[in-house]
Amino acid sequence: MKILVVNSGSSSVKYQLIDMENENVLAKGLCERIGIDGRFTHKWGENKKVMEVSLPNHAVAMEYILKALVDSETGVIKSLDEINAIGNRVVQGGAIFTKSCLVTDKVVEDILSLKPLAPLHQEAHIAGIKACQKLLPNTPQVVVFDTVFHTSTMPDYAYRYAVDERAYKEWNVRKYGFHGTSHKYVSEIMAEKFGRKGKFIVCHIGNGSSVSAILDGKCQDTSMGLTPLEGLIMGSRSGDIDATVVDTFCKQTGLSSAEAVNWLNKKCGLLGVSGVSEDMRDIEKIAFSDEVSERADNCRLALNMCAYRVKKYIGSYMAVLGGLDAISFTAGVGENGWEFRENVLKGLDGLGIVLDKEKNKNAKRGEYSEIEAENSKTKIYVIPTNEEIMIARETKDIISSL
Amino acid sequence: MKILVVNSGSSSVKYQLIDMENENVLAKGLCERIGIDGRFTHKWGENKKVMEVSLPNHAVAMEYILKALVDSETGVIKSLDEINAIGNRVVQGGAIFTKSCLVTDKVVEDILSLKPLAPLHQEAHIAGIKACQKLLPNTPQVVVFDTVFHTSTMPDYAYRYAVDERAYKEWNVRKYGFHGTSHKYVSEIMAEKFGRKGKFIVCHIGNGSSVSAILDGKCQDTSMGLTPLEGLIMGSRSGDIDATVVDTFCKQTGLSSAEAVNWLNKKCGLLGVSGVSEDMRDIEKIAFSDEVSERADNCRLALNMCAYRVKKYIGSYMAVLGGLDAISFTAGVGENGWEFRENVLKGLDGLGIVLDKEKNKNAKRGEYSEIEAENSKTKIYVIPTNEEIMIARETKDIISSL
Repeated sequence: MKILVVNSGSSSVKYQLIDMENENVLAKGLCERIGIDGRFTHKWGENKKVMEVSLPNHAVAMEYILKALVDSETGVIKSLDEINAIGNRVVQGGAIFTKSCLVTDKVVEDILSLKPLAPLHQEAHIAGIKACQKLLPNTPQVVVFDTVFHTSTMPDYAYRYAVDERAYKEWNVRKYGFHGTSHKYVSEIMAEKFGRKGKFIVCHIGNGSSVSAILDGKCQDTSMGLTPLEGLIMGSRSGDIDATVVDTFCKQTGLSSAEAVNWLNKKCGLLGVSGVSEDMRDIEKIAFSDEVSERADNCRLALNMCAYRVKKYIGSYMAVLGGLDAISFTAGVGENGWEFRENVLKGLDGLGIVLDKEKNKNAKRGEYSEIEAENSKTKIYVIPTNEEIMIARETKDIISSL
Repeated sequence: MKILVVNSGSSSVKYQLIDMENENVLAKGLCERIGIDGRFTHKWGENKKVMEVSLPNHAVAMEYILKALVDSETGVIKSLDEINAIGNRVVQGGAIFTKSCLVTDKVVEDILSLKPLAPLHQEAHIAGIKACQKLLPNTPQVVVFDTVFHTSTMPDYAYRYAVDERAYKEWNVRKYGFHGTSHKYVSEIMAEKFGRKGKFIVCHIGNGSSVSAILDGKCQDTSMGLTPLEGLIMGSRSGDIDATVVDTFCKQTGLSSAEAVNWLNKKCGLLGVSGVSEDMRDIEKIAFSDEVSERADNCRLALNMCAYRVKKYIGSYMAVLGGLDAISFTAGVGENGWEFRENVLKGLDGLGIVLDKEKNKNAKRGEYSEIEAENSKTKIYVIPTNEEIMIARETKDIISSL
């Protein structure tokens, strides 16, 4: 069985064609700058081809992708009929979707009904789904939601905000959580490595970041909320902040609350504090240098704030779980930033979390590692995430049960 | 030495006259509904007198208070000259004030310059100070800030939000923290009872609530932020929430961001979730009854949410402190709500915090209690707070050093 995993963003489509017999990735790539101009990168085996093409919309992008998959030069399958199913990532499942499901007209309608909760994303997902429906009308499609791992098991006292009934029932104001597919994938690897399910914390630290508390395979709480703004400090997102700041911004600038929220999402976080970049690697370069400047101080502060927030969530979720068997780091910074991991875990020995600094430093990029010290009560893992394989597996399960 | 402690709110003035020889309260009371109509309650010894009077402004309220203190029926001193100093509570000290200080023209100006950070409070405080200056022109006045215990020692990575430089430097957007006088008072008692300073958490749970992490007498972090909105779920305040909700409110109602923040402060919290009351006692009455109704379910949820948030902060601050020697509960609910304390600490045994349920239940109202189980690694205290005595002590120290 071959499954095409599709991740449509507002101006991009990422994809992977996966052979489910062995979970090998046959080809993968990215259409970007959709609606602007267009650029298409396709990789297969050890090969890569980059093309500047015109991508006016998602349908045209999907055409390029499917053509590339069967092309005499770049192709990896002979006919599109070999694609048994398409698995689509969808950011927001709201309170409607508590599991992955087959795409039907009703499902499309329900996904679009969640537009107020994720305006850009939901439309892009549906554009991707519709493009596939047009080009591969007989191929079943599945949707896998970023929220479901969290919303399907979080207890009400964790996902509810202390707002009135109107805000909860009519405006759907509650915690949803995101990155669910990654948290689920990583927590399953953790259970495998640990020998059983248990009290786990997953730290997904990338450009977007979230932490989750997982008890016996079930998400108990997670740091992102109504939107991906809440929680950790991210590349350009503030994370947790006094909500009054939105009003302060409006008063000071004369702009709207929508502009304020846009600012908190796009201009704050590591970028806001450092004034340099939203990429932690750029910030680390300056912070770890001998540079004596306000800019360098701001970079050092940004790193410390970011690590401190992760540390606070770890403690918080230890209280939620009533202890901790294992913690893991995943995604770009989580997998590759050994300095960051060291900064996060510094001073947690008293809570039974003891890092082996050498093991942490030597953890190999893209590989599974165990980095706790011998006297650590808690196991500490670095686990490369793989949302695509998780989406493909969920898709396979649903298709197989039809 | 006799010190008059004054706490001026937007429509009220609370006061206590304290004899510093023995820290006895000679008289205390409250002028309320200032600017509306007026009501004056004065207590001395075992006596109490309630008067409906016209209170057009803070100056008139102060006149009533001073008259009552020397009145032939209600008085406790012969002449106003016996008042050696006045200690004023001020909510917001911003980044300007890092300690209590004598009132000067410059101090008054600086307090008023912080109006954007606490519009109603700062004006009321100054109205109180000016009324006293007029009526007791030769009596020194001191200001004691709710923020100072936090702002004087919190590290930058704890008090900074991940916003840009303009918001931090020009708009003063950072964490200040409040209830500092209470956190300081209670943490000093903790050090006394514990035998030394250490890793302490103070849970001040009243109508307004906050938690703080205190290391060797120094505040490391606290749950309230730029304003008292952030942090725990309170009587009518939401506490922590995705800042996007402000924009959701504006979009859904057509109202301003200022109205949204007002809603989060006045209509949310326990009141918003329960739909019943902002007073936890009212909510507990229904929640603990056999009532089968949506209302009763909402009351139960409100209590669980509220306790869960405190639990999460305890874990978070254990990570901040790298362990925990002692935790304390103070203020209305913290001192009197044994069910609430039990709910907060439930399931923390694995973190070394073990409650003795009987001791907790039997803790006497208004008294110091130790309520941890014998096998608890962490001491658990109930400590009645006393912000007035703390203000009086700070005032005495400053006056004595003149």
